[in-house]
Amino acid sequence: MNEQGLSEREIFSYLENAKSEDTDYYRVFSSMCTRPHKIAIEANRLFIEANLGDLGLFAGAHKLEQEVVRMLGNLLHASSIDVPSGGLCQSSVCGYLTTGGTESNIQAVRGMKNLVTAGKKEFKGTPNIVIPASAHFSFDKVADMMGIEVRRASLDSEFRVDMASVEKLINENTIGLVGIAGNTEFGQIDPIDKLSEVALENELFLHVDAAFGGFVIPFLEKPQPFDFKVPGVTSIAIDPHKMGLSTIPSGALLFRSPSFLDSLKVSTPYLTTKSQFTLTGTRSGASAAATCSVMKYLGYEGYRKNVQYCMELTSKIVEEARKLGFEPLIEPVMNVVALKVPNPDLVRERLLKKFGWNVSITRTPRALRLVLMPHNSPEDIELFLEDLKKVTAEIKSP
Amino acid sequence: MNEQGLSEREIFSYLENAKSEDTDYYRVFSSMCTRPHKIAIEANRLFIEANLGDLGLFAGAHKLEQEVVRMLGNLLHASSIDVPSGGLCQSSVCGYLTTGGTESNIQAVRGMKNLVTAGKKEFKGTPNIVIPASAHFSFDKVADMMGIEVRRASLDSEFRVDMASVEKLINENTIGLVGIAGNTEFGQIDPIDKLSEVALENELFLHVDAAFGGFVIPFLEKPQPFDFKVPGVTSIAIDPHKMGLSTIPSGALLFRSPSFLDSLKVSTPYLTTKSQFTLTGTRSGASAAATCSVMKYLGYEGYRKNVQYCMELTSKIVEEARKLGFEPLIEPVMNVVALKVPNPDLVRERLLKKFGWNVSITRTPRALRLVLMPHNSPEDIELFLEDLKKVTAEIKSP
Repeated sequence: MNEQGLSEREIFSYLENAKSEDTDYYRVFSSMCTRPHKIAIEANRLFIEANLGDLGLFAGAHKLEQEVVRMLGNLLHASSIDVPSGGLCQSSVCGYLTTGGTESNIQAVRGMKNLVTAGKKEFKGTPNIVIPASAHFSFDKVADMMGIEVRRASLDSEFRVDMASVEKLINENTIGLVGIAGNTEFGQIDPIDKLSEVALENELFLHVDAAFGGFVIPFLEKPQPFDFKVPGVTSIAIDPHKMGLSTIPSGALLFRSPSFLDSLKVSTPYLTTKSQFTLTGTRSGASAAATCSVMKYLGYEGYRKNVQYCMELTSKIVEEARKLGFEPLIEPVMNVVALKVPNPDLVRERLLKKFGWNVSITRTPRALRLVLMPHNSPEDIELFLEDLKKVTAEIKSP
Repeated sequence: MNEQGLSEREIFSYLENAKSEDTDYYRVFSSMCTRPHKIAIEANRLFIEANLGDLGLFAGAHKLEQEVVRMLGNLLHASSIDVPSGGLCQSSVCGYLTTGGTESNIQAVRGMKNLVTAGKKEFKGTPNIVIPASAHFSFDKVADMMGIEVRRASLDSEFRVDMASVEKLINENTIGLVGIAGNTEFGQIDPIDKLSEVALENELFLHVDAAFGGFVIPFLEKPQPFDFKVPGVTSIAIDPHKMGLSTIPSGALLFRSPSFLDSLKVSTPYLTTKSQFTLTGTRSGASAAATCSVMKYLGYEGYRKNVQYCMELTSKIVEEARKLGFEPLIEPVMNVVALKVPNPDLVRERLLKKFGWNVSITRTPRALRLVLMPHNSPEDIELFLEDLKKVTAEIKSP
């Protein structure tokens, strides 16, 4: 920090210089985020000073947060939940806006742990949760932080969690299961209905990580069951800052029952409210406003078109890649494609270095991973495939 | 969510309506946040789409984050740290931008736990940390989440942590101490130098929560030692979104040694980077840009003036309150005042209902708590004291 400070002009020249090194999402197939919608950006600006950590001072921003929870509840079939609506509940769904999928996943597991502990269940060992091997690395953070064993169930040939493996991993210390609705690597959806049956049978919580899929699956032509319509689902993570087109940070965590939120409460002696169930204290009201606005602006039809566009790109890339001899690992379920190419790590590196394409790589097996987002275009895909053809040809005969 | 979506006009009318219920910080003495600086708001807008969770795509925003860490390091005397600078280190300080004090505190304790565990220390019981009774409620979240016992040391008559109490609470399972540099209720600073001695003697980590004080203490006329100049301090939480005048979410966590950051890492298979030490995944680059800009714009001198202004308000309110017969609990150390008034809860309620003043209440003893922030003015203070006089007179002789 300088003694006297720089001028506005100096600072913006510095900022523009930094910005020139950031992506504008051109030639990016590796991100589950995208440019926020224009209306989200404007709403963010309008509520830039709002702090959802102090609800008494920001009652307006809090209303926007509650409205988002209500709209997300509708989207995720909260109407099928049969619980009395309380103070924290919006039409029988409870929840709040988080900083994103990681916080949502951490808090869902924390809620499970606290509810089980409050129920005075005695554990013979460390309490555990059973998650798919495909779960996001945020569950490594859960494992690292929470004194909970995270057991990873294997996947079937289509990269869905294998139910036999899940059942084998459940023991007397298991408190909950996790299913992924749109996993990060393959865009695959776990059999949430089957996980639900096992969860209900064994009296376990079932958290669904729909951070990416939550704003995709409901708008697909034939959506698979993944939300509160499935009776065993107790919580859902959904991220407006991914396919919801809102600003960062914008995640959400929804619970079937208000007891979950209660289990997360700590006292807040010097605030305008008496307790807090969120993980962070000071929270962005700007993001709540952004999410509320873009959801209201697009409506179901807007998101449906958005998903349809991304799915058309997905079909196009798979079709064209097949013509080049590259098969996808699975028939895409949503707008994520994993392509079998020779030497994917080298292909990835050359695509970036030679042509500026950002793609990523799945872990097992290693394949070229592409997320087709609203910032991509059909023309991009044609150019990409031409470059992919060149790069793979080079590698075959160097 | 509607089927077709609303018009832009409908949405902004809805937003404006909500905004009218939010505070504009007029008559607010209860918040440690304030209006962000204009330049922070503009920089936020410029980087609204930047995701610090994907550093390969957002190298520019990442540079701004590193620059903030470097500037904060200078502010907090990181130059006095003698460690080799590595990839994660900026001039021998390491750290990253968090969502705020709660995340910083959680991650500092997680780092302690992981480093101790990696050192293969055997515990006879649950590992514990010793914190002041005055510590922020975020430590209740740490206690709830982390499988760590949080032991609360009592305070001396000036609301600093009592060193005898701290020493009595340390046992063979203690992994670290926490000191507060600017506690939420009284603005008091714990004796960080004495905590440092005890920490070094017992080979314990020492985390300093300077979420509020970090942007105040360095600019006071006679700053007390609280930062990396004190040899035992291993980590510091400091929040740019409080007295740093940046946008929400803007916290920071700085470590004396890169081993801390290493201890927080999990692998990130499908990102442009290989591992992640942050708590959240997707992170706001907009806030990094905002913080970087306001720090560069104000410089030391700008923050000095800001703190001086708030301290002048503080002196004024104490002086005038004394004339009304209301003594402060302690002589204010920074811009937080706790006033002894009869029946503070009722006074608070009436100040709000009758005159729209937002104040809060300390826990033990119960007193009227006022935070004097850049959004307050000398005129506000005069009006407030008039209203305080009326309200307290009413209560005395109803």
